[in-house]
Amino acid sequence: MSTLIEKLSWRYATKKFDPARTVPTEKIDRIIEAVRLTATSSGLQPFELLLVTNPEIREKIRAVAWNQAQVTECSHLLVFAAWDDITPERVNMMFDLTNEVRGFVNEGWENYRQQLLGIIASRSTEANYQAAARQAYIGLGSALVAAAFEEVDSTPMEGFDPAAVDEILGLKARNLRSVILLPLGYRQEEGDWLVNLKKVRRDRASFVTEIR
Amino acid sequence: MSTLIEKLSWRYATKKFDPARTVPTEKIDRIIEAVRLTATSSGLQPFELLLVTNPEIREKIRAVAWNQAQVTECSHLLVFAAWDDITPERVNMMFDLTNEVRGFVNEGWENYRQQLLGIIASRSTEANYQAAARQAYIGLGSALVAAAFEEVDSTPMEGFDPAAVDEILGLKARNLRSVILLPLGYRQEEGDWLVNLKKVRRDRASFVTEIR
Repeated sequence: MSTLIEKLSWRYATKKFDPARTVPTEKIDRIIEAVRLTATSSGLQPFELLLVTNPEIREKIRAVAWNQAQVTECSHLLVFAAWDDITPERVNMMFDLTNEVRGFVNEGWENYRQQLLGIIASRSTEANYQAAARQAYIGLGSALVAAAFEEVDSTPMEGFDPAAVDEILGLKARNLRSVILLPLGYRQEEGDWLVNLKKVRRDRASFVTEIR
Repeated sequence: MSTLIEKLSWRYATKKFDPARTVPTEKIDRIIEAVRLTATSSGLQPFELLLVTNPEIREKIRAVAWNQAQVTECSHLLVFAAWDDITPERVNMMFDLTNEVRGFVNEGWENYRQQLLGIIASRSTEANYQAAARQAYIGLGSALVAAAFEEVDSTPMEGFDPAAVDEILGLKARNLRSVILLPLGYRQEEGDWLVNLKKVRRDRASFVTEIR
């Protein structure tokens, strides 16, 4: 398995993890780094990650995630949590960080800051949250590819009660909202109903239109 | 540049493409294949891609995308277009395709089909579109990593008039809505104000919380 495409063909939504196998820390670190480096709109990175290994917390999350066993049987549970609003404080935090890292203030960038502050002020809290949540899905796409690249299995999950997960993880107090769970680990082929079934995708002609 | 993380550090939102350089077809094919293989909620793949090389069409899109030069100067323009609704026909199309590819009908899968048909019927058209659009962002995340892997530059763009792009590409008649533009090509360092500036991301401690 050498090419990226081969690895992406190998990956699937793992239904049964081997609870006895732990993913090496350096692989988890690289998957997280791929998410941290992800592009986001205006560079805001409007989401955070929670890396949950605590077994009791994972039991609680499983109970509000349709009792899906991957939540407790995986090696590491990643939770993607989006900003519940894109506030002026958060925008200024990222623009100030940019100036600090680059060591100078640029007029064009400062004009863009003001434009963006106007846009977020004109939108509802819910619309800002929805925009932030979309960016978390870019991070998910990066995590899925990075995990496959590391030959680590993963299962993206939207099937859970976000308010209950927010409560378990104390996210509301941090002005975050859970949007995706991503168990990471190693497949246990025995007991996984999906592992030997063919991957189903529309063919390229049904998926891509070329406009020459 | 050997590791995936090095390639992700190399990538940035290219501001100036070299209009004289074309990305080889096999690289574009692999980037598209990475998106086609992306995981999506319930396996619906609720979006499509448009690969635009036609210069006149790209001029029209540029005019409704804040005149951003990357739209016309890149080698290939990818447009991500989400389903404008998740209809029973579309759900059935994907579930039927699954049965066809796998060669059998499974009771659990059929029960899940009915459950999903209930969920989409209970949501507004707009809510279904929003759910579909989020999935397109998973595809974007995959495309960004796959492009970096191929050492192809890219610029994700939300800054355009979606209704106008839908009109130019005839998307409304196909029940699609444009959500992201992704110019692909090769950077022209001379004339790119961003290429030599430091990449800005929050540090890991500000981005990831570990719950042990």
